[in-house]
Amino acid sequence: MIRVTIWNEFYHEKTEENVKALYPNGLHATIKEQLEKIAADEYEIRLADIDMPEHGLTDDVLNNTDVLIWWGHCRHGLVDDAIAAKVVDHVHRGMGFIALHSSHLSKPFVKLMGTPCTLRWRCIDEHARMWKVDRTHPITRGLPDSFELEAEEMYGEPFLIPKPDDLLWVTWYAGGEICRSACTYERGFGKVFYFQPGHETCPSYYNPYVIQIIKNAIDWANPGQDRIPLCCDSQPPFEKIEK
Amino acid sequence: MIRVTIWNEFYHEKTEENVKALYPNGLHATIKEQLEKIAADEYEIRLADIDMPEHGLTDDVLNNTDVLIWWGHCRHGLVDDAIAAKVVDHVHRGMGFIALHSSHLSKPFVKLMGTPCTLRWRCIDEHARMWKVDRTHPITRGLPDSFELEAEEMYGEPFLIPKPDDLLWVTWYAGGEICRSACTYERGFGKVFYFQPGHETCPSYYNPYVIQIIKNAIDWANPGQDRIPLCCDSQPPFEKIEK
Amino acid sequence: MIRVTIWNEFYHEKTEENVKALYPNGLHATIKEQLEKIAADEYEIRLADIDMPEHGLTDDVLNNTDVLIWWGHCRHGLVDDAIAAKVVDHVHRGMGFIALHSSHLSKPFVKLMGTPCTLRWRCIDEHARMWKVDRTHPITRGLPDSFELEAEEMYGEPFLIPKPDDLLWVTWYAGGEICRSACTYERGFGKVFYFQPGHETCPSYYNPYVIQIIKNAIDWANPGQDRIPLCCDSQPPFEKIEK
Amino acid sequence: MIRVTIWNEFYHEKTEENVKALYPNGLHATIKEQLEKIAADEYEIRLADIDMPEHGLTDDVLNNTDVLIWWGHCRHGLVDDAIAAKVVDHVHRGMGFIALHSSHLSKPFVKLMGTPCTLRWRCIDEHARMWKVDRTHPITRGLPDSFELEAEEMYGEPFLIPKPDDLLWVTWYAGGEICRSACTYERGFGKVFYFQPGHETCPSYYNPYVIQIIKNAIDWANPGQDRIPLCCDSQPPFEKIEK
Repeated sequence: MIRVTIWNEFYHEKTEENVKALYPNGLHATIKEQLEKIAADEYEIRLADIDMPEHGLTDDVLNNTDVLIWWGHCRHGLVDDAIAAKVVDHVHRGMGFIALHSSHLSKPFVKLMGTPCTLRWRCIDEHARMWKVDRTHPITRGLPDSFELEAEEMYGEPFLIPKPDDLLWVTWYAGGEICRSACTYERGFGKVFYFQPGHETCPSYYNPYVIQIIKNAIDWANPGQDRIPLCCDSQPPFEKIEK
Repeated sequence: MIRVTIWNEFYHEKTEENVKALYPNGLHATIKEQLEKIAADEYEIRLADIDMPEHGLTDDVLNNTDVLIWWGHCRHGLVDDAIAAKVVDHVHRGMGFIALHSSHLSKPFVKLMGTPCTLRWRCIDEHARMWKVDRTHPITRGLPDSFELEAEEMYGEPFLIPKPDDLLWVTWYAGGEICRSACTYERGFGKVFYFQPGHETCPSYYNPYVIQIIKNAIDWANPGQDRIPLCCDSQPPFEKIEK
Repeated sequence: MIRVTIWNEFYHEKTEENVKALYPNGLHATIKEQLEKIAADEYEIRLADIDMPEHGLTDDVLNNTDVLIWWGHCRHGLVDDAIAAKVVDHVHRGMGFIALHSSHLSKPFVKLMGTPCTLRWRCIDEHARMWKVDRTHPITRGLPDSFELEAEEMYGEPFLIPKPDDLLWVTWYAGGEICRSACTYERGFGKVFYFQPGHETCPSYYNPYVIQIIKNAIDWANPGQDRIPLCCDSQPPFEKIEK
Repeated sequence: MIRVTIWNEFYHEKTEENVKALYPNGLHATIKEQLEKIAADEYEIRLADIDMPEHGLTDDVLNNTDVLIWWGHCRHGLVDDAIAAKVVDHVHRGMGFIALHSSHLSKPFVKLMGTPCTLRWRCIDEHARMWKVDRTHPITRGLPDSFELEAEEMYGEPFLIPKPDDLLWVTWYAGGEICRSACTYERGFGKVFYFQPGHETCPSYYNPYVIQIIKNAIDWANPGQDRIPLCCDSQPPFEKIEK
């Protein structure tokens, strides 16, 4: 069982009617439900949100999380610096990290990237089409050449992320932009995946392709072992081998 | 002076009136003229085409070419295998190579890539917008975040090229696709640049951004030295240094 | 069951006593035995060699191979061009390909790379130490930071391969060189892995780390589906979605 | 004129006799002298150190620096967080940044990488040989296949940096390790180069190859323009073009 924690700032689902209607228990709960529909017995999924003590990310929770999924948007600034730093440290020692949508500006993601992570954007719920530009990465397995999202927020260039280790999808938007929308990174012993879809007013987390991609990303990011200690030891020269 | 050879299959410009009207002396001649407008004293530009003896690519020409620009489309199959192999060999030993538009299926480019280089396409002269996704590569220097081509042929995914060393532009097409349209590769001691714009019925080679990109690519691909011999020598162990 | 075919030029094991003593049934047979020791029920392994009809690579064999492992050295030139081209075509349509040791100059590998693939070398059975430089790729999973080969042939720079999609190991040689010794590439729909160890006079294919890496590479390169047709269709514009 | 600032923590050169003897005015002064020997008229070089007001990195200095070279080792912790953050911000907006030797753990470099940047090390002034593994990058231009450093500190794997955009050199150490010793990264609009040689007790900054590499890196990292504002604007849809 891969131990997954889905973290949500969980704000718009409580304060805006249209978002509440779409994701009544929070979009983290929807992602959990959708994942369990296709892989109930593969994951042990826990929910966490910003209003829980320690944002729901206690040492015990983090030590027992293989892959952390993060969704934040307008409350990035309210995340405690010490907790963000602790998340980064867990990634460095092996925990998988999946940053969804506007989490491109979340504290843990920005720290992991080392870049501003700014971008251009437009929020008119426009048509988007996601094009697969990688054919062999485990995250793209089983996905079609392209699929459509009937409504999404546009995120466009310049998108100041580091060059991805692997660029997996590029999104076409009806309004005229493209987005490098699915990117992987190695950070220490941990794997990071950024995935663009998921504006709170859009039903993307009910899209079976989106859920399949998140599932593939969990499987890919799972370290398969506990935290790895960082090593900065002095090292003696190797002995010569006598045959 | 960088010595540039622009090679063209030079067919549609002789056989189709609309192409002839657009590129009366061949699109290779237009590229030459446009480059000379912005950098007359930097390049020594020679033209070559498929109908010349040895396709205009004699040993003497190739030995004195720093960067070879290639445009082919419907006559790939008529290019002599031995000449294509010779071009590849020169690239391996340092010559720069810029493959334009439908040269993605030219013999030298396909051999240099090692992949099928096939793609999906549509030829309705549709709006295209080129988005810069790299901000530090020499080829992107001075170019805006995006620019528009009023009419181009669409090239789309799956585009079976190797993962680019650097992906520089992604094109948005009005019809719903994206293309990884500007890609760099190291091949032996030589540099290769693939650049998508330039269908024969479209005025892209009069676009100043397109010409600036081709200029930047020439400067980048210029090896700055003669051909480098390939080395597959046996090598004795290094001596120990006595301090 | 992943269907693996291990191809060997199978020459030195018949003609040189020391090689025969080390790999009595051919090094392909040894690799098979060692893989089956750790994963008997995961693979269906077939052996093939250059002296079989069609080098043992008939359409039926290739169509039923998920991952092809290749070992060649002094008989590259005797491999039929048409069969080498057929192997490349199968890789493009999804078959995994693992090139071992001196297969860097084999016909299929060179065609898949598009580069000369030459290198410097030294054959004195020297100490080698393989350093893992990637911590998250599936092929590196479970392997230690480094491991030693008591005797290997040195392969060194300039090694004219394309920049790897992922560089997984770098080898240190006692004589003073380093080698980019474990490299991955996407080629069409297929995955390619180059792995340096395995000179015919060296016992590397009895090394458990080497075998674990080959196992991991098989699992990684397995396409999980039959051959994928290449697509170069014309594509109509997408319909607009009416919400 | 490219405006270069060389920053040094400038400690061991004042406190240890052997270091003082080697780099009497600080190793930053030596790098300046050596660069001016080969390119006096190309650079305007300023020196800065930790003991100056604001560590010598006032707004005025940073605004007028095209490329910042950094050398730090035992005093990383004494660098003011606000100044480190300001350096990172300048890199994001275009300033080039070259991190030398033990600056792998400097505050600006670690923030730019997003990884721990830890490594294994050994300080016995051992023989090192630097192997060029890239043949086309501007920083490698004119450098031989390999060159030797008679004495350097060993830095080895696991070296927890992000996968380099381009890996340029790998170092072989007599004691049995390798190091990814010359790595490039895009960070926002700025370019970053990590370069391993330069322990304070070793004469590496008198080595002409080392100086040539630093020179090439300055030329490569020079943004050629003033700081670029980060953009996170909302963007209206593009107008349709009427031909």
